[in-house]
Amino acid sequence: MIKAVGTATAKCRVLEVRGGTSRWRQDVLAAEEPLEVRLCPAAGPRVPVAVTMRTPGSDFELAAGFLFTEGILDDPGQIQAITYCTDEGVEQRYNIVNVHLRPGVMFDPQRLQRNFYATSSCGVCGKAALDAVELQGVRVAPDPGFVVDAGTILGLGRSLRRAQRIFDRTGGLHAAGLFTGDGRLERLREDIGRHNAVDKLIGGAFLAGRVPLARSLLMVSGRAGFEIVQKAAVAGIPVLVAVSAPSSLACAAARRFGLTLIGFASDARFNVYAGGERIRGAAGQGRPHIDDGDGPC
Amino acid sequence: MIKAVGTATAKCRVLEVRGGTSRWRQDVLAAEEPLEVRLCPAAGPRVPVAVTMRTPGSDFELAAGFLFTEGILDDPGQIQAITYCTDEGVEQRYNIVNVHLRPGVMFDPQRLQRNFYATSSCGVCGKAALDAVELQGVRVAPDPGFVVDAGTILGLGRSLRRAQRIFDRTGGLHAAGLFTGDGRLERLREDIGRHNAVDKLIGGAFLAGRVPLARSLLMVSGRAGFEIVQKAAVAGIPVLVAVSAPSSLACAAARRFGLTLIGFASDARFNVYAGGERIRGAAGQGRPHIDDGDGPC
Repeated sequence: MIKAVGTATAKCRVLEVRGGTSRWRQDVLAAEEPLEVRLCPAAGPRVPVAVTMRTPGSDFELAAGFLFTEGILDDPGQIQAITYCTDEGVEQRYNIVNVHLRPGVMFDPQRLQRNFYATSSCGVCGKAALDAVELQGVRVAPDPGFVVDAGTILGLGRSLRRAQRIFDRTGGLHAAGLFTGDGRLERLREDIGRHNAVDKLIGGAFLAGRVPLARSLLMVSGRAGFEIVQKAAVAGIPVLVAVSAPSSLACAAARRFGLTLIGFASDARFNVYAGGERIRGAAGQGRPHIDDGDGPC
Repeated sequence: MIKAVGTATAKCRVLEVRGGTSRWRQDVLAAEEPLEVRLCPAAGPRVPVAVTMRTPGSDFELAAGFLFTEGILDDPGQIQAITYCTDEGVEQRYNIVNVHLRPGVMFDPQRLQRNFYATSSCGVCGKAALDAVELQGVRVAPDPGFVVDAGTILGLGRSLRRAQRIFDRTGGLHAAGLFTGDGRLERLREDIGRHNAVDKLIGGAFLAGRVPLARSLLMVSGRAGFEIVQKAAVAGIPVLVAVSAPSSLACAAARRFGLTLIGFASDARFNVYAGGERIRGAAGQGRPHIDDGDGPC
C-alpha cells in the first residue's frame, strides 16, 4: 500500500538493490495528484480551465498563478474568492479548485488554451486518472519468461549516457532509451520534453509495427511521473527504469497496470517500486513480491 | 543572434562568469520549437490535436507516438501517411505534422485531451509563440536602479537548497524560489511539475497584490524552457536564474521581453544568456551587452 503522509509526500515500501544485496525499506515519494481549476463567473456556468498533475499544497496559489501567467486574469481584484469544490457527493474535493469571479469580470475563452485532461465529471483524483487509462484496456501482459538480471539494470545508465554523449552538448535534453532484456540499447531519442522523448521512441516502434514491446525495457534520464508510466503501459513495455525518483501516482499506476517500476537507477544501486518479480537476483532468494496498492487517492 | 545549427541545437553567444572573472564564449543550446500535430481524415476537415514544445527531429515518430500513447490511434495500419504541412504560404511547415488517416478510420474526439496551445492559423513557430505572448503586452520594464551583484547570483543556489532540504526527502520535487535583489529568499514553493512550482510562487504574490515583481529574482531548480520565461515575464520579474540549461526559445524570449536569463548557476559559476546589463561585476568592466536575437525560428 502507498500511504499518504500529509499532502505533499506518500510513504511506500520499496526493495533497494545495491551490488549483490537487497533489502526492503520505507521510502518517501513526492505526491502527484491531478488538480482541476474552474472559473466560476458571478453569473453563468462554471468553466473548467485545466487539469494539471501537481503535488498537493498551495493549491489556491497554483490556481491563481496559472490563471495570471497564462493571461486569463490580470488583477487579483477580479477574484471574489477561491474555494475547494463543495458540491455534494464529490469525494475528491481537494483536487478541484473553484475560482469565483466578481460580478462583471469577463474572461477570454480563447485564452483557455491548455487542457491537460478534459473531465466531464466532478470527480478528479489519482484513482480516476488510473481508471481513465484502464478504460483503454491497458495492462502489461505478464510474460513469465521475461525476467531481467539485476546486473543488467545496473548497466543501463552507462549505455544511455554513452549514446547521449555524442549528441547532447547542451546539458538540456532528456533522453529515453529502449533496451533488450539483456541490456542492449536498441534505440535512443532525445528531447527538451521528457514526454516527447518517450513519444518519439514509442512512436518509432509503433510505426514499425513493433508494439506491444513485450520484451523491452524503457529507461528515462529523469524522473518518472504518472504520464510516463501511462505511455509505457499503453506500449506494453514491462519494465520502466528511471534515473531519478518516481511519483506516488507513477508508483500506483505501475502496480495497477502490472509494470515493473525502477527508480534512482545508478551504476551501483536501484530501487524497485513495483513488479519486482521480473528482476532476477534482486531479493537474494526467489522473486520479491510487492504489495498492490491503490495509491494515495 | 541565436543561430540554428542543424535542427536539434542552436548556437548562442554567452557570458560565462566564474569567480571574479568572466569571458564571452560560444554556447550550444537545445533547440525548442512548437510542433502542431493534426489529424487528417480521408474525408472531412483536418483536426488540430495538440501543440507541444519539442526539440526538432524525429517529428513523425513524435506525432505517431503521441497519438498512440494518448489512446487516439491503436494500429499503425490506421495511418495512410505522415507529412509536413505543405500548404501554400506556410513558412514554418516543419513545425506542423499532418497525420493522414486511411479511409474509414474513425477517431474519438473525446480523446483529444491535451491541447498545449490552440492555434487558429497555419503558422506555428517559435516566433509565433513569442508574438502570442507579446500580444498580452508582456515586457519587463527596465529599472535602471535594479542591478544585482554577480556574487549574489553565486549564493542563490545554496539558499534554495537549504530551504528545500527540510521538505524534500523524496528527490522528486522541483523548487522555485523568489529572492530579493540582495539575495534573500522570500518564498519557496515545490512541486512535481516545474511549471506548477513557478505558478504557486507567482500566484501567491499575485493574490497578495504584489505583481509586478519588478525587484525580484526567480530561481528554478531545473532547466528554463520558453514557458518558464513567459511566466516570469508576465509577472514582471527582471532576473530568472536556472540551475541547469536554458532552451533556444527561452533565450530568444528573454531577449525579446527584456528579461535577464542566467543558466547553469552553481556556487562557482553561471552563464548569462540575456540582459547582462543587470549583473554588476560580471563583465569585469562596465555592463556587458548581449545582442538581441530573434531566435532560431
